[in-house]
Amino acid sequence: MSDDFRIPRSPDNDYSDEWAGKRREFLKAKTGADLTHTGQYSIGTDTLPGNIENFIGVVQMPVGVAGPVQINGEHANGLFYVPLATTEGTLVASYSRGMRVINECGGVKTTVVEQFMQRAPAFIFSDAREAREFGQWVDDNMEGIAAAAESTTSVGKLMHIHQWSVARVRYLRFNYTTGDAAGQNMVGKATLAACEWIKATYPGKCLYLLSGNMDTDKKHSHLNVLHSRGKRVIAEIVLKKEVLERVMKVDTKTLAKASVLANTGAMMAGAAYNGPHSANGIASLFIATGQDEANVVESHAGLLSHELLDNGDFYMAVTLPSLICATYGGGTGLPTQRECLELLGCVGKGKANKLAEIVAATVLAGDISLACAVIAGHWVSSHDKYGRNRS
Amino acid sequence: MSDDFRIPRSPDNDYSDEWAGKRREFLKAKTGADLTHTGQYSIGTDTLPGNIENFIGVVQMPVGVAGPVQINGEHANGLFYVPLATTEGTLVASYSRGMRVINECGGVKTTVVEQFMQRAPAFIFSDAREAREFGQWVDDNMEGIAAAAESTTSVGKLMHIHQWSVARVRYLRFNYTTGDAAGQNMVGKATLAACEWIKATYPGKCLYLLSGNMDTDKKHSHLNVLHSRGKRVIAEIVLKKEVLERVMKVDTKTLAKASVLANTGAMMAGAAYNGPHSANGIASLFIATGQDEANVVESHAGLLSHELLDNGDFYMAVTLPSLICATYGGGTGLPTQRECLELLGCVGKGKANKLAEIVAATVLAGDISLACAVIAGHWVSSHDKYGRNRS
Amino acid sequence: MSDDFRIPRSPDNDYSDEWAGKRREFLKAKTGADLTHTGQYSIGTDTLPGNIENFIGVVQMPVGVAGPVQINGEHANGLFYVPLATTEGTLVASYSRGMRVINECGGVKTTVVEQFMQRAPAFIFSDAREAREFGQWVDDNMEGIAAAAESTTSVGKLMHIHQWSVARVRYLRFNYTTGDAAGQNMVGKATLAACEWIKATYPGKCLYLLSGNMDTDKKHSHLNVLHSRGKRVIAEIVLKKEVLERVMKVDTKTLAKASVLANTGAMMAGAAYNGPHSANGIASLFIATGQDEANVVESHAGLLSHELLDNGDFYMAVTLPSLICATYGGGTGLPTQRECLELLGCVGKGKANKLAEIVAATVLAGDISLACAVIAGHWVSSHDKYGRNRS
Amino acid sequence: MSDDFRIPRSPDNDYSDEWAGKRREFLKAKTGADLTHTGQYSIGTDTLPGNIENFIGVVQMPVGVAGPVQINGEHANGLFYVPLATTEGTLVASYSRGMRVINECGGVKTTVVEQFMQRAPAFIFSDAREAREFGQWVDDNMEGIAAAAESTTSVGKLMHIHQWSVARVRYLRFNYTTGDAAGQNMVGKATLAACEWIKATYPGKCLYLLSGNMDTDKKHSHLNVLHSRGKRVIAEIVLKKEVLERVMKVDTKTLAKASVLANTGAMMAGAAYNGPHSANGIASLFIATGQDEANVVESHAGLLSHELLDNGDFYMAVTLPSLICATYGGGTGLPTQRECLELLGCVGKGKANKLAEIVAATVLAGDISLACAVIAGHWVSSHDKYGRNRS
Repeated sequence: MSDDFRIPRSPDNDYSDEWAGKRREFLKAKTGADLTHTGQYSIGTDTLPGNIENFIGVVQMPVGVAGPVQINGEHANGLFYVPLATTEGTLVASYSRGMRVINECGGVKTTVVEQFMQRAPAFIFSDAREAREFGQWVDDNMEGIAAAAESTTSVGKLMHIHQWSVARVRYLRFNYTTGDAAGQNMVGKATLAACEWIKATYPGKCLYLLSGNMDTDKKHSHLNVLHSRGKRVIAEIVLKKEVLERVMKVDTKTLAKASVLANTGAMMAGAAYNGPHSANGIASLFIATGQDEANVVESHAGLLSHELLDNGDFYMAVTLPSLICATYGGGTGLPTQRECLELLGCVGKGKANKLAEIVAATVLAGDISLACAVIAGHWVSSHDKYGRNRS
Repeated sequence: MSDDFRIPRSPDNDYSDEWAGKRREFLKAKTGADLTHTGQYSIGTDTLPGNIENFIGVVQMPVGVAGPVQINGEHANGLFYVPLATTEGTLVASYSRGMRVINECGGVKTTVVEQFMQRAPAFIFSDAREAREFGQWVDDNMEGIAAAAESTTSVGKLMHIHQWSVARVRYLRFNYTTGDAAGQNMVGKATLAACEWIKATYPGKCLYLLSGNMDTDKKHSHLNVLHSRGKRVIAEIVLKKEVLERVMKVDTKTLAKASVLANTGAMMAGAAYNGPHSANGIASLFIATGQDEANVVESHAGLLSHELLDNGDFYMAVTLPSLICATYGGGTGLPTQRECLELLGCVGKGKANKLAEIVAATVLAGDISLACAVIAGHWVSSHDKYGRNRS
Repeated sequence: MSDDFRIPRSPDNDYSDEWAGKRREFLKAKTGADLTHTGQYSIGTDTLPGNIENFIGVVQMPVGVAGPVQINGEHANGLFYVPLATTEGTLVASYSRGMRVINECGGVKTTVVEQFMQRAPAFIFSDAREAREFGQWVDDNMEGIAAAAESTTSVGKLMHIHQWSVARVRYLRFNYTTGDAAGQNMVGKATLAACEWIKATYPGKCLYLLSGNMDTDKKHSHLNVLHSRGKRVIAEIVLKKEVLERVMKVDTKTLAKASVLANTGAMMAGAAYNGPHSANGIASLFIATGQDEANVVESHAGLLSHELLDNGDFYMAVTLPSLICATYGGGTGLPTQRECLELLGCVGKGKANKLAEIVAATVLAGDISLACAVIAGHWVSSHDKYGRNRS
Repeated sequence: MSDDFRIPRSPDNDYSDEWAGKRREFLKAKTGADLTHTGQYSIGTDTLPGNIENFIGVVQMPVGVAGPVQINGEHANGLFYVPLATTEGTLVASYSRGMRVINECGGVKTTVVEQFMQRAPAFIFSDAREAREFGQWVDDNMEGIAAAAESTTSVGKLMHIHQWSVARVRYLRFNYTTGDAAGQNMVGKATLAACEWIKATYPGKCLYLLSGNMDTDKKHSHLNVLHSRGKRVIAEIVLKKEVLERVMKVDTKTLAKASVLANTGAMMAGAAYNGPHSANGIASLFIATGQDEANVVESHAGLLSHELLDNGDFYMAVTLPSLICATYGGGTGLPTQRECLELLGCVGKGKANKLAEIVAATVLAGDISLACAVIAGHWVSSHDKYGRNRS
C-alpha cells in the first residue's frame, strides 16, 4: 500500500485539534465524507490519551434522562435520575414508566453480592499427569503467586484461582478484586507477573499462554454467569397488585403465567438472559457513563426471578452475575461521561458499587415495563408513537 | 412522589434546545451535576424524535479511525477507513495493526450468507394436542399469515416460521427479511398483524403472547447462532506465514496450536464466541454508525475458524451468525452517525450488506491482532503504552 | 502383541454356545475371572448376530415392574405395567408411587408431536461463497437428493435438510422419518447415497465428510432439543390438590414455588433437563425393552413445565424433544427384551409411538414422585429403607 | 382402581423366586405377555434387596468382550479385556479395532485428576441481603458443617461448598469425596444432616429445599463439566502416523482437519461432547459392571482434544469431567456384574480409579475407531456387515 493511503499522525503529540482536523480532511479527500458534526466537540483533546488513537472527533449520542427512581440500596440510596444514551425511540419512556411503578411500590432494593475480575492463562505440559501435578503446586504456592501478582498493583487483590484440566493443559483463572476500576488491564498485568514468577519458580518445565480463553473477556459465557465476572448484583421489588393494575393495566396472575412461559422460551432458545431486555438499559447507561461498551455482552447475562405471593402481589428480582462497571479509569474521566456520573453521584473512587446498584435497578425498571407491555399488548403501538415508523 | 421531582416536559414540542436546557437546569438543581459539556452539541433537535425522549444533550464519545483495510467483498470493495467510537485505549491501534496484516496478505474476502429478523409469539392451548393441531394449521395457512404480516410493511417479507411445542404451548418464530433496516419494529408490527389474523381465522380457541421470548431480542442465544438473527456474514483470509512473522512476530504453527487451545477454553467456559474479542470492534462500529448499541449482545456471537495450510500459511475466518446492522432507520440518520456511515460509503438504502461485510472484516482484523499479541506476549505491554495505567 | 492374547473367534460361525464358552475359558485363563453366571442364559445364540460381537454370555439385569399407570394417549390407551431394568434401589417403588398419583388424578395424557432422525454431513469448499452457492443448489435439488436417499430404504423418508454456513464449510442435517425403527443406520446409508449423488451431480468441486458432528448422535445437544432427534413427545396431567396432599403430603402452592426454584437452579447449572430425573425412567425402560442404551443421553433432555391453576390444582407436563425409541430393529428382537415389549403391547411395527407415549408417561410419574419427595423430606429416608446403606 | 389391578407383593419377604413367579403370572393374566425368558436367571434373589422392587426376573443383555487394550495408567496397568453389554451390532468390533491401534502405538496413558460427588440444597430468605449474609456465615462455619455432614458416613469427606446467589435464594453445592462408591446416597444423607445442623445453628430464619437442582444428578449440565461430578479422568495417546495409515487407512493430516471440522460442528450444535461417541462405550461398560445406567448422561460429557505433531504423529486425548463409576455399592455386587468387574480386576474397595481409567481408555479406543471410519468412509458399510439391515 502506498504511503498515500496512510492515516496522518503527528510525529509528536497526536492528541490535538489540529491533527484531528488534518485527519478529517484526509478522510474527506479519500472518501468524500463531510465530517463537520463529528468535528464539533467541546471536550479537550488533552483528556483523550489512554482512551483513543487516531482521534477525528466525536459521535454525538443523544442522552435522555429517565426517572427518577427510588433506590433503597446499600450504596445507592434515594431518588436517581438516570442518563441513558441511546438512539432507540421509546427506550427512555419505557424505563421511566417502569420507574414510576417502582416508586409507587416503595422503591427497589439493591444488593451487591460479590465482585471479581479475571485473567485466565493456560499452561501446557507433556501429559495430563504433569498438568495435574502443576495444579497441585499452584494450590501449594498461592502465597508466592499472590505476592507476585499484587506487586504490580496497589488496588488489585488476588482472591482465588480456579483450575481445570483438559488433556495436557491446565487452565487457570485468576480471580481478583479491583476496587472501583473494571480492572481488565490491572489483572492482565498482575497475572503476567504471576505467570512469570510461576515460570521462574516451578521446578518442572512450564510453557504458558497469557489467555487460554477462559477469562472470558468481552464475551458472554456460562462461566461468567456462574463465577461473577465484574459485580454480581441483585435488584428486588414486591410489585403491588393494585399498582400494576392501575398503572400498567396488568393482572399479577397473568404476569406470573407469562413469566413462566417466557422462562421456558428462554430455556428453549438457550438465551443468556431470561427476562425481556437487560441489554437496553445496560448499554445506554454504559455509554452515558463512560463504561467499556463492549462489556455489555458479559453484563447483559442474568436471571429474572419472580414469585406470585399469596396476597396477589408479585415479587420480582433481577440477578446480574457479571456486571462490569467502573467509576474510575477507562472512559469515566471524559467530560460528558463524567457529568453523567455526577448526575448519579458516582464520580470517583468508592462509587462502583453504587453505580452497579443503579444499573441493576434500571434493568429491573425496564423489565417491569416491557413485560407488562407485552402482556397488555401496547408494546407495538408504543413503538409506533415514540419510535419512527421504519418499515 | 411529589410533582417537585418530575422531570420537566414540554406540553407541546419537547424536542427543543429550550426544553433540553430546562431539564439540565432541573437536574442541576436536584443533583448538583453540572451538565455543561453534555449540553454542547451541534446536531439539531429536529433530528431527535424517534430516537430519544427527555433529551438533555449528548455524550461526546471519541471516534478514532482505523485502517485502511482492503476488503474484497461482494458489497464492500476497496480500501476502507473504519470509524471506531470507543474509550478503550489501544483498541484503534490494535485494529489498525490487524488491518495492516490483512492488507499485506491481499485483503479480506467477505460474504453475506443470509439474513432474517424475528418475532416469536407463543400460543397457549388447553393441551398439547391442540397445540400440535394449531401448528399444522399454521403450516397449512402460510399464505394467509404472510399476507396479513406483509400488509403492514412495504419492505418486510415473511420467509418462514419455525415452530416448537413445549407442554401445551406452541412457540412460533417468524423469520422476515427486512431490507436495509434492522427491522425489529417492522417485524413486531407485522407479527402482531399476523397474530391477530390467526386469532380471527383459526377455527379453535387461541390465546397468544406477542413474545414468548424465543425471538431472542437483545439477548445472546444459541438459537440466534443457529438461525441467523440479523445477517450471517463471514470474513476470510489466508494469512501468509512470512507476513505474520515479519509484522506480528508470530509463527503460524504456534498460532494454530494456540487457536486449538483457545477453542477448548471457550468450550469449557461455554462462551458465545471462541475467538479473542469480537465485541470490541462491533460495539465501536455500532456506536459510530448509529446502530442499536444493545444489539452488540446478539452480534458478538460467532465462530473463529482456522486451518494451518500445507505451505505454512494460515487460513482464518470469522463467522458472525447474528450480526444486526442497518443503514436505514434507528440512529443511522443522526448527523455524526450519518457522517461515519458516509465515511464507509454506507448511507441509505441498499447498503446494509456492505456495512455487514465491513463489520466482519473489522472483527477479523481485531482477532488477528489480539491473537498474535497474546502469543507474542506484548499484549499487556501495549496496553501500558496506549492505555492509561489504571491500577 | 503376541497371538497368545488374541480373543478366540470362530473361523466359521462365531455365534454359538461353544465359542462363547471358549472365550469365557480364555478370559478365565488370562484374568482369573469366573464367568459362571455370565454364561447362564436362556436365549439362543442365533438371535445375536447384528447385536453383538465376541459374545461371552449375558448380564442379568434385574427387572421390576412399576404401575399400573393409566395412560390416555393416542397410541397407548389403558392401564400399563411398566418393566424397569435397574440396579438402583427405590427406583421402581418411586415410579410406582408417582403412577398411583397419576391414576388417582384420572391418568396421564400423552402426545407425540413429531419425529425425525438425522445424519449430518459437512461439505468443504474453497471459500464461503462457494459454500453458500452449494447451499442454494441443495435447496434447488431437493427432489433428486431425496430420490437418491430414499433409494436405499423402503421406510425412511427425507423430510427436509437444515443448513449452516461456518467459514467455508456447509453443514447439512438431513431429517428423515424412519417408521418404527430408531433409524440411525437407515439414515446413515440413505445420507451416504444422497451425498454420493450430490458429489456426482453438483457442477462444482465438492468434498464431504459423512458426519460433521451436527447429527448429534449419541450426544446431548441443544440442537436435538430444538429440532427433535427421535420423537418429540409430551405427557400432561392436572394433579388434584387433594390427591397430592393425601398421597404425597405436599401442598400444590409449595410445589409451585419449589418448581420455580428448581428451574432457576437448572438454568444456573446449564442443565439438559430442568426436572428431577428423566434419565432414571428412560434408562430403565430402554434396557428392559432393547433400546440402544447410549441413546439415553439424547433422550433425557427436556423440559418439565408447570402451572398452579386457580382452583389450586397443578398442571404438570414433561416435554421430551429427542426421545429415541423403537419397536423394531436393534435389541428389540432379543428374547427378554421382546417379552418386556409384549408386556407393554409394543411388539413389532406400528408400535413405536405407543412406546414413546409410555416412556413419557413414566418420566412424568417419576418426576411427580421425586419432586414431592424432595419437598416432603422423605427422599433420603426412602433411600435408606429400600436402597442399601452404602456409606 | 380396583385391587384387581394391583401388582402382587408378599407381605413378608418379597425377594423370592416364588413372588417373582406370582408377578409374572399376574402380568401374563393381565397382558398376555409370556415372560419365560425373563424368568430364567441364575442369580439368587437374596442378592436383590437394595437394587430393585417388584422383581419379576432379568433382562438378558448380551455381553461381548473387546480388546485386549494396553493401558498405562496409575491404577490400571497392563492388558485389559473389556466387557461391553450392548445390543448394537458393530460396537464391540469397532472398539476392538480402536484398541488394536492403541496397542500398536504403545498403549494409552490414563490419569484421574480429581473426584467429587455433590448434593445441592437451596436456602430461601426474605431478601438478597439475608441470602448473602447466610453465605458468609456458611463460609465462616465450614468446620461445623463438615462435622455434621461427616457424622453420617465413615467414607465421605466434605471438601468444599460452592455458593450462588440468585434473587433471594442461596444455592449451595456440597462437594464430597466418596471413596469407591458413586456416593449419591451417601452425600444425600450427609447433606441432609448438614442442612439440619445449619437450620438449628444459624442465628437467622432459614428455610431450605434439599435439592435446588444444581446437583445436577442424572442430568447433563455445564456445571458438571466445569466442576467434576464423579471422576475427572483423562486418556491420552500419541497415534503413530504409520499405524493409522496401515491399520485404519487414514492420514493424520486429514484426521486433524476432520477433527477441527467436527469440533466446529459440535460447537454449533451445542453438544455435550465434541468427539464421535463417548456414550456407546460408557453405556456398555456401565451395564456390564453394574453402574447406575442413568449416570451415562452425566458421564458422556467431555472433550476430545487433538494436536498434529511436527513429525506427523497425532496426539489425541479424551477428557471425561463427570464420569460416575463405582466398584462398591449399587449394582456392582450382583453376580454377573461382579464377574465383569472381576474380568477387569476391579472388584471391591480401592478399585474405582482403576475402573475410571479403563472407561476413559475404552472411550478413546472407540473415538479413534469411529473418527477414522467416518473419514475412510467404511462407517456405513461396517454397520451393514455386522449390524442387521434394518431399513
